[in-house]
Amino acid sequence: MTADPSTRQRRAQQEQEQPKAHEGQRETPSGRRHYLPAQLRREHILTTSREVFARSGLKGARTRELAAAAGINQSTLFEHFRSKEELFIAAVVEPLGETIDKSRQRMNGYAEAGNAEDLRGLLQAGMLENLHGMVEIYPLLVQALYSDVELGKAVYREHLAPFISARAEIAQDMLGDGIDARLLQLASFGMMFAVVLDRACREDAAQPTSQEEQQQELADIARQLTDLITLGAPPPKPK
Amino acid sequence: MTADPSTRQRRAQQEQEQPKAHEGQRETPSGRRHYLPAQLRREHILTTSREVFARSGLKGARTRELAAAAGINQSTLFEHFRSKEELFIAAVVEPLGETIDKSRQRMNGYAEAGNAEDLRGLLQAGMLENLHGMVEIYPLLVQALYSDVELGKAVYREHLAPFISARAEIAQDMLGDGIDARLLQLASFGMMFAVVLDRACREDAAQPTSQEEQQQELADIARQLTDLITLGAPPPKPK
Repeated sequence: MTADPSTRQRRAQQEQEQPKAHEGQRETPSGRRHYLPAQLRREHILTTSREVFARSGLKGARTRELAAAAGINQSTLFEHFRSKEELFIAAVVEPLGETIDKSRQRMNGYAEAGNAEDLRGLLQAGMLENLHGMVEIYPLLVQALYSDVELGKAVYREHLAPFISARAEIAQDMLGDGIDARLLQLASFGMMFAVVLDRACREDAAQPTSQEEQQQELADIARQLTDLITLGAPPPKPK
Repeated sequence: MTADPSTRQRRAQQEQEQPKAHEGQRETPSGRRHYLPAQLRREHILTTSREVFARSGLKGARTRELAAAAGINQSTLFEHFRSKEELFIAAVVEPLGETIDKSRQRMNGYAEAGNAEDLRGLLQAGMLENLHGMVEIYPLLVQALYSDVELGKAVYREHLAPFISARAEIAQDMLGDGIDARLLQLASFGMMFAVVLDRACREDAAQPTSQEEQQQELADIARQLTDLITLGAPPPKPK
């Protein structure tokens, strides 16, 4: 997924050491377009469509606009995807499922923590990973959930609800009585969603500027939210 | 606000004792439409438009559809609102601000709690009120935040962010070191948002059927989330 600028920045950093497999295959030095192999063309359409969908939504995005963003004409677009809706599912909804799967795998490690302190460390690391993932998928998540009421409900039921239930099942044994394991997972998801909503909507002046500041901010948030979930909000010291 | 069925149900119950001021003024017994006074007409347009916006979104809603829902023609609609966007602000964004103001007023009472137990009781009652409010405004909140990227950012900055900051200021003195007061408020907002998202997307079969069951479910959630925020998730008992 490389839908938004922050994703691109992170990916660019992550991939510094890796060979850039597709680079140079899209345009010749003269600037004229190559005919890409079908699979690469398809991936290119998915990448550019994510940007259009994140900006205009499912209903707002025009097929012409989606084709133009990929540098192709509409008939080529329809060779790859039968409809705008099919393209939306492949570009936006399917990657959501992949991100969610990663998070689910991480959760399995928590059950093996030796004591409360170890568990809190694991939870904090997982929270940070999830926050990073949420920052990346936020524009797509929002489009998937809120572009269209019925589609949103389907995405929630097929992707998010099973994810939350799977985490709840793993968390069950790590919890005492008094809170429903599913509600706790739902609450954690909501906390992260709100943090990322806040980041996405803040004035540019309030945004951390450097990559390091952004990392530090998310790490602080992960620590505070983990403490909140495991210990509760700290009461004031008596004066 | 009477945008969604659950709102209508709650309002219907709340207003059972109150005289229904506008009833019968919209249609004569023969079914023919009265000419409403401008203020009543305006309110009627706002009510019916909320349903259209909640269903179709700002971009998806057609002026013709908005006029038809109010039982008027488009020229009458434009006598009251200069544009679809102006109608959206009046119908969806402004009521959000009112709901938020109510919640802010409630928060002032928390500062007067005598001890931790009293505070938890007040927090739980406030959480329940907020959950009810969130269930009501959820369709409008989602439309306001996600109908349009720029509008959503503006709504967040002008309505939600100041609300969260105001609550954080009040909460400041009730908190010890280790968590940012604003992050705590943001996290609480997110928890409630996720609970309401879950309710909105669940299969109908999983929804509580009666009014009493719904009230009971929200009361349980309010208790659990308040305990989570004040005490943390309970660790398992040693075997």
